[in-house]
Amino acid sequence: MLMTPAYAADPSPAELRAQAQEVFKPLPSTVPSVKDNRITPEKIALGKALFFDTRVSASGVFSCNSCHNLATGGDDNLETSIGHGWQKGPRNSPTVFNSVFNAAQFWDGRAEDLKAQAKGPVQAGVEMANTPGQVIATLKSMPQYIEWFEAAFPGEADPVTFDNFAKAIEAFEATLITPAPFDAFLNGDDDAITVEAKQGMQLFIDKGCASCHGGINIGGEGYYPFGLVEKPGADVLPENDKGRFAVTNTADDSYVFRAAPLRNIALTAPYFHSGKVWDLKQAVAIMGTAQLGEALNDKDVDLIVAFLDTLTGKAPEVTYPILPAETSTTPKPVATIIPAN
Amino acid sequence: MLMTPAYAADPSPAELRAQAQEVFKPLPSTVPSVKDNRITPEKIALGKALFFDTRVSASGVFSCNSCHNLATGGDDNLETSIGHGWQKGPRNSPTVFNSVFNAAQFWDGRAEDLKAQAKGPVQAGVEMANTPGQVIATLKSMPQYIEWFEAAFPGEADPVTFDNFAKAIEAFEATLITPAPFDAFLNGDDDAITVEAKQGMQLFIDKGCASCHGGINIGGEGYYPFGLVEKPGADVLPENDKGRFAVTNTADDSYVFRAAPLRNIALTAPYFHSGKVWDLKQAVAIMGTAQLGEALNDKDVDLIVAFLDTLTGKAPEVTYPILPAETSTTPKPVATIIPAN
Repeated sequence: MLMTPAYAADPSPAELRAQAQEVFKPLPSTVPSVKDNRITPEKIALGKALFFDTRVSASGVFSCNSCHNLATGGDDNLETSIGHGWQKGPRNSPTVFNSVFNAAQFWDGRAEDLKAQAKGPVQAGVEMANTPGQVIATLKSMPQYIEWFEAAFPGEADPVTFDNFAKAIEAFEATLITPAPFDAFLNGDDDAITVEAKQGMQLFIDKGCASCHGGINIGGEGYYPFGLVEKPGADVLPENDKGRFAVTNTADDSYVFRAAPLRNIALTAPYFHSGKVWDLKQAVAIMGTAQLGEALNDKDVDLIVAFLDTLTGKAPEVTYPILPAETSTTPKPVATIIPAN
Repeated sequence: MLMTPAYAADPSPAELRAQAQEVFKPLPSTVPSVKDNRITPEKIALGKALFFDTRVSASGVFSCNSCHNLATGGDDNLETSIGHGWQKGPRNSPTVFNSVFNAAQFWDGRAEDLKAQAKGPVQAGVEMANTPGQVIATLKSMPQYIEWFEAAFPGEADPVTFDNFAKAIEAFEATLITPAPFDAFLNGDDDAITVEAKQGMQLFIDKGCASCHGGINIGGEGYYPFGLVEKPGADVLPENDKGRFAVTNTADDSYVFRAAPLRNIALTAPYFHSGKVWDLKQAVAIMGTAQLGEALNDKDVDLIVAFLDTLTGKAPEVTYPILPAETSTTPKPVATIIPAN
């Protein structure tokens, strides 16, 4: 008996869409609401300024956009980011695009949302190496920022706080949504994606990829062991990074990571938390053996990549901000490295 | 006999304007033409992409915009820039705004124009630490860049060259012009600047500041010894940087620098080639003693600063670019430091 391929030569768009709608969701047409943070134009505008402002880092060199670059898929295209003192970060920088739809933030999900996430890199010694107090002193030294915070957080007696800093960034990031041909297909446009992409989508569902990489971000929702069936080599899965174990301290969570959200994956090489794999086909093949216990053939890998390409969306048009000028009371940039205790 | 102040209590705008027009020039209303590089919309668009692309640096961390940040006055607000391997550059990064009007580029004028300048930081070991060959290999690995070069340099058999890279950047930079209240005053609007600013302008001309800081950029045209009358301390004028001497190898050019262009000076602290002075009033006072041999009183300094504030212009509105994605042939970022020979 001949093996039946897992996909039809010309999949029925209606049938495929019906299957896809059970596991995936298209992007909404409007900016989503987020918990405890009403999104307003004033917050978005402030958040954009903060997102691009290098003065929130101790050295004055790095902004959020340094590692989550809106020009290059919302990430920095480095194995792991370079931060304060030319230190290398421990994990690959994820894209900021559509990150508002992730169930939690960071590879280990240690931040419950984007406003919690935004506080991390600012304080990480290998990233911005700053302190909340210095960030607030910096922002309060510039009258224009005080006005912007007042407009974004009306009625608050002292609106320039680290919490509000993070909320404004979250509000801006919530607007960074990239509608893609994938969404057009889900929304009913049969011809939005190629036949190969449809076959790839069929494979992606049938092989089981979609059981972890589902939902609105095709991932970003659950936690799974990397190497469910077969652990990849230590080059791809370094032994010293046990993933979510560091968050939950539960043995079951050793080498457990958040399933990567796959929107714009074609733009965000290198791949995996280690950033060790530059080729998307290779990454798909590794997922096949590691998570499915299956050596995908070249044709299948090509089709799955054709499907993944339909997740590349239209990046938002952002006007580069004009930031407030420093004043005599603005803390000076500090480029020296202060060793951790 | 009482000293007559050097400025009228309420200067006649018409008289002051007539004097000012002899030493200063307003910005033109259109993008200026540049030598050997016809400026077209296609070149500007390509140049903008290149200006923001971190992949022209060896590490993938720095773009032109890192040190000439359009959000913060066209510079990086650091003493001297931080580059590849966290190395500190030798001199303060000048603003890119209106730089097309400078007679030559860099503090020592060693590049005759912006297309010559653009090639420098890319190759400097302490800045981007890249090579022309790697830059071109990077750009040629991305089909979208090849198309953009073809559109910007039509009819050329091999348009993706380091020369054309620099020309495109020059074309974009030529659009970075910031019309200011100063220009409105020169152009006939009596009330575009305050009475104090007019008094400061009068002082700036009468005291002799304008003999070096004149023209369209209020500087950027000629070379002068820093410490014409009295050398500032080694903190401000470090002994090991002899300025233009390194370019001309002429003893007369020891500690000679290009007179700083002063447009947007209020946005571009810290000051001088050493970047050692953060306060604009202090910088003005140092210029008084060093270049004029005169201890300016507080009132005069305040008035001159009021005049300098009128040079803060409207920054151009720039849409942040969406850059081409890397391909399998794109050279990988290299963060290691290769020691100079």
